[in-house]
Amino acid sequence: MSANETQQPSPTHDSAFLKACRREPVPHTPVWFMRQAGRSLPEYRKVREGVPMLESCMRPDLITEITLQPVRRYNVDAAIYFSDIVVPLKAIGVDLDIKPGVGPVVAHPIRTRADLAQLRDLTPEDVWYVTEAIGLLTRELGATPLIGFAGAPFTVASYLVEGGPSRTYENAKAMMYGDPELWADLLDRLADITAAFLKVQIEAGASAVQLFDSWVGALAPADYRRSVMPASAKVLEAVAGYGVPRIHFGVGSGELLRLMGEAGADVVGVDWRVPLDEAARRIGPGKALQGNLDPTVLFAPKETVEEKTREVLDAAADLEGHVFNLGHGVMPSIDPDALTRLAEYVHTQTAR
Amino acid sequence: MSANETQQPSPTHDSAFLKACRREPVPHTPVWFMRQAGRSLPEYRKVREGVPMLESCMRPDLITEITLQPVRRYNVDAAIYFSDIVVPLKAIGVDLDIKPGVGPVVAHPIRTRADLAQLRDLTPEDVWYVTEAIGLLTRELGATPLIGFAGAPFTVASYLVEGGPSRTYENAKAMMYGDPELWADLLDRLADITAAFLKVQIEAGASAVQLFDSWVGALAPADYRRSVMPASAKVLEAVAGYGVPRIHFGVGSGELLRLMGEAGADVVGVDWRVPLDEAARRIGPGKALQGNLDPTVLFAPKETVEEKTREVLDAAADLEGHVFNLGHGVMPSIDPDALTRLAEYVHTQTAR
Repeated sequence: MSANETQQPSPTHDSAFLKACRREPVPHTPVWFMRQAGRSLPEYRKVREGVPMLESCMRPDLITEITLQPVRRYNVDAAIYFSDIVVPLKAIGVDLDIKPGVGPVVAHPIRTRADLAQLRDLTPEDVWYVTEAIGLLTRELGATPLIGFAGAPFTVASYLVEGGPSRTYENAKAMMYGDPELWADLLDRLADITAAFLKVQIEAGASAVQLFDSWVGALAPADYRRSVMPASAKVLEAVAGYGVPRIHFGVGSGELLRLMGEAGADVVGVDWRVPLDEAARRIGPGKALQGNLDPTVLFAPKETVEEKTREVLDAAADLEGHVFNLGHGVMPSIDPDALTRLAEYVHTQTAR
Repeated sequence: MSANETQQPSPTHDSAFLKACRREPVPHTPVWFMRQAGRSLPEYRKVREGVPMLESCMRPDLITEITLQPVRRYNVDAAIYFSDIVVPLKAIGVDLDIKPGVGPVVAHPIRTRADLAQLRDLTPEDVWYVTEAIGLLTRELGATPLIGFAGAPFTVASYLVEGGPSRTYENAKAMMYGDPELWADLLDRLADITAAFLKVQIEAGASAVQLFDSWVGALAPADYRRSVMPASAKVLEAVAGYGVPRIHFGVGSGELLRLMGEAGADVVGVDWRVPLDEAARRIGPGKALQGNLDPTVLFAPKETVEEKTREVLDAAADLEGHVFNLGHGVMPSIDPDALTRLAEYVHTQTAR
């Protein structure tokens, strides 16, 4: 199937979410929440009982159910495909697991050129469950758009090189500084894998994609531009022909916002540290913005949540396009009812 | 002893470090490294053998030795008083320990107003070892300035409320948003304790102080201004009368730099994410800057370290005053010789 053939009229085309991404007028500011599916939901904890994380990302029935749970509950304007950033690595045979309470752990971290051999190309057959799940999902979702999901090359590389989660990314950055050619080759290979993973999702029916470069905020702008941006741009360029909005997000990325936009994003995700009006100044014209309520605000009483949400909406008043979201993922210990109220509050406050 | 009586001519007065802090011409850009004393040094690991961290912060002989070790080795332009941000809490009887591989762990986290009773005022007698160690240190250091050390109220509160290290500070921020009066009272009490701790250091002979608000980058600017800045400003104001430079530093604080300066800093510490020329634009005139080489650069070959250092020095070329430092602490696994070479490189490159 070619990129053009997928551009048929879609029931999601006129959704508030896709209109906002395209910077068109919207009936209300669309809302979704990063990590809206997951441990904060009792119905998620129930279906995950006894099922390891990676298995849940590779079973179409579970992917579908978990992706739909927050849509049923929160009246959000988009679903996001349930997965994990290491799923494409697992799919091509990298020996890794997601350990509860720890995160992704890689059996043989990539430190040398020989280690790159772990990374072969990803084919649609490697991730048959993605295609199957998205087929089920789009039928269920109807006019609600599904956002495709992938980790960006830097963030995926940080796990591959460190061997697991890190606070400092010292091994990844040591490679980036110490062996820039190996680093560039690693990121380029990850770019191809990531692009292939996103293409499968779009061809199966995803209406948008979000490239999560969650940990890229560890880098100074000069290093990002030189050592990371080319790979992220390659991913975003590879899916440009489908005409689906490309969201690009990182935590602590205040200094990188313009570059992350220039890498090929239609929508730049902003964490809670940078007010959206300031973010728009940094990013420049021609992009929608997504964000950016501090997720910890949801621990506060309703009045405080509304006051802080009002601050976000006020800062977003003059944006060309705004998708409301948290500034990072939903925390596992949050009360889901706070998210229900938040989605409703944003919808009510922004109804035109 | 009054503040004025301490302003006698000091052998450190004309040091490059203090001149740079005062934004006066310097013979060379002064250099020191955050966490220059510590696990990266074999001589440190030797003296710490069998000695728990907190004990090492409460024994004048060890404090003195550990503080001096990097000065002997690196030819740095300043020493920094060896301590830990929880030492003043321990000194007033808070039940806590520093667990190897974990960090500070507080037995009874502060969550309610009643829990505040753990925090009584700090007197010089509570930290007699500070006075004694600094007496020993200033004699040994001669013309090399000693920087006093304290954690800022937000960062100390984050440990007290969480009960230990955190990636999200969700309990601390939940209190900040959910019970702003309790939060303000907690930070105000910590401000008094912190100010008392710094006064002891200055009166014993410290030539400057650095207030470490290491984790404050977790906050958006509006929250910092409303909920943290008053307490930090109280600390910095309390030591203003001594005439010693006050350095104010946080990690990931790009959006807070101006406010951290306005809180009462003479020198604003900048992490590696914001180029120093951009940081100076945000901070405005009348402040020196400190920073900001990415500490992971030190894993790279010498040529790369020099190239990246050159970028920092170039970005600092038009600053009113510049103290060279890393953008965060020295990593435990770094080769100390890389720091020796770095200090020498900065000195050579900036000799006037």
